[in-house]
Amino acid sequence: MRVFVLQAHKASTSPFSLNDLPGSGGRMDIVARFVSSALFVSHGIRKDVMVYVILNGPEDPPKTVRFDARKLKYVSPDERNVASHIRNALLRFKDNGEIETSPGVFISRRGFEDVLRELKNSFRIYWLDEGGRDVEECGLSEGAFVLSDHINFTEDEIKILEKYADEKISLGRISMHADHCVTIIHYLLDRGTAISPPTISHSPKE
Amino acid sequence: MRVFVLQAHKASTSPFSLNDLPGSGGRMDIVARFVSSALFVSHGIRKDVMVYVILNGPEDPPKTVRFDARKLKYVSPDERNVASHIRNALLRFKDNGEIETSPGVFISRRGFEDVLRELKNSFRIYWLDEGGRDVEECGLSEGAFVLSDHINFTEDEIKILEKYADEKISLGRISMHADHCVTIIHYLLDRGTAISPPTISHSPKE
Repeated sequence: MRVFVLQAHKASTSPFSLNDLPGSGGRMDIVARFVSSALFVSHGIRKDVMVYVILNGPEDPPKTVRFDARKLKYVSPDERNVASHIRNALLRFKDNGEIETSPGVFISRRGFEDVLRELKNSFRIYWLDEGGRDVEECGLSEGAFVLSDHINFTEDEIKILEKYADEKISLGRISMHADHCVTIIHYLLDRGTAISPPTISHSPKE
Repeated sequence: MRVFVLQAHKASTSPFSLNDLPGSGGRMDIVARFVSSALFVSHGIRKDVMVYVILNGPEDPPKTVRFDARKLKYVSPDERNVASHIRNALLRFKDNGEIETSPGVFISRRGFEDVLRELKNSFRIYWLDEGGRDVEECGLSEGAFVLSDHINFTEDEIKILEKYADEKISLGRISMHADHCVTIIHYLLDRGTAISPPTISHSPKE
């Protein structure tokens, strides 16, 4: 199982316009590409993936949307479609545990530390940071990969990461978009450090 | 210089709806993510990149939109923004050579073979194909990388590729989206097989 966690600092926690993901959505375009890169291969979905996006923007933060690839339906890789599932989750949000708002898409009142605390029980936690150990030196295994959006982790978030992360790793000296980091992590794991090959379900939708 | 070429089989050659890139645009979402992955790093643009997208969908194919990173302005990495620049190019198209429709964005009446013939003069041409030689076996250098969208290259296109490509390479056994392939090519080149490090211009826009 590969888990990808995005701390989205400005991403809207109330319904936003699908015609303005960067502005009205608080860089919801970054969130959408992150989810898409984690889940999709050509003509299929990676079945062994879980994605958490922690929305921290206005008007009611924090909220966490979780995508479980094993149960996912009706999601396609374009930004607008992924964002529409997040928007739908926000519309149906109830402040009462985690609820499933469409097949494989869940929303809850969880923040950054809640998510990491939960994942810590089951996964090796990798903190992606340009100041970390080089990935080609330290290697990778299946686990939970924690990234930030276009804004660096805050001091408070760094304290949480220091508490829960097993390893701070870097993918190189160039600062990349979160979705590109996800693609590279998949590539490196697919290439051979993964314990088991990924399971992919092929769907008629690309 | 890194050049990325996408043969977009169904992508619209007439103005399309920005609210329906997969449908009305003929999988223009794939085209947009491809362009975005080629050009953008976090908070900046890779200055040593050129992107060609060859649109072959209705109603007036083929048309080629070229993004020259050295001159590019006003483009941001979200799908809708990139697609809006392609739509603008289609609106301003004149069947009379290549014209610049916004800073760094050009359109012309060129098809797949026209683009490859032109690139052949200056670049080593890599044909991306799952049946090619494994990239970690044959290595990579700066060059022109030719990919297809969600539809495989046709027999006619394969004949053109056989004529112009220097090498047929594979990124692995999993069939990936074109934009993910671009991200991995950048990663591998950044990692050290590149002759010179990439030039990145940092802009206030992410």
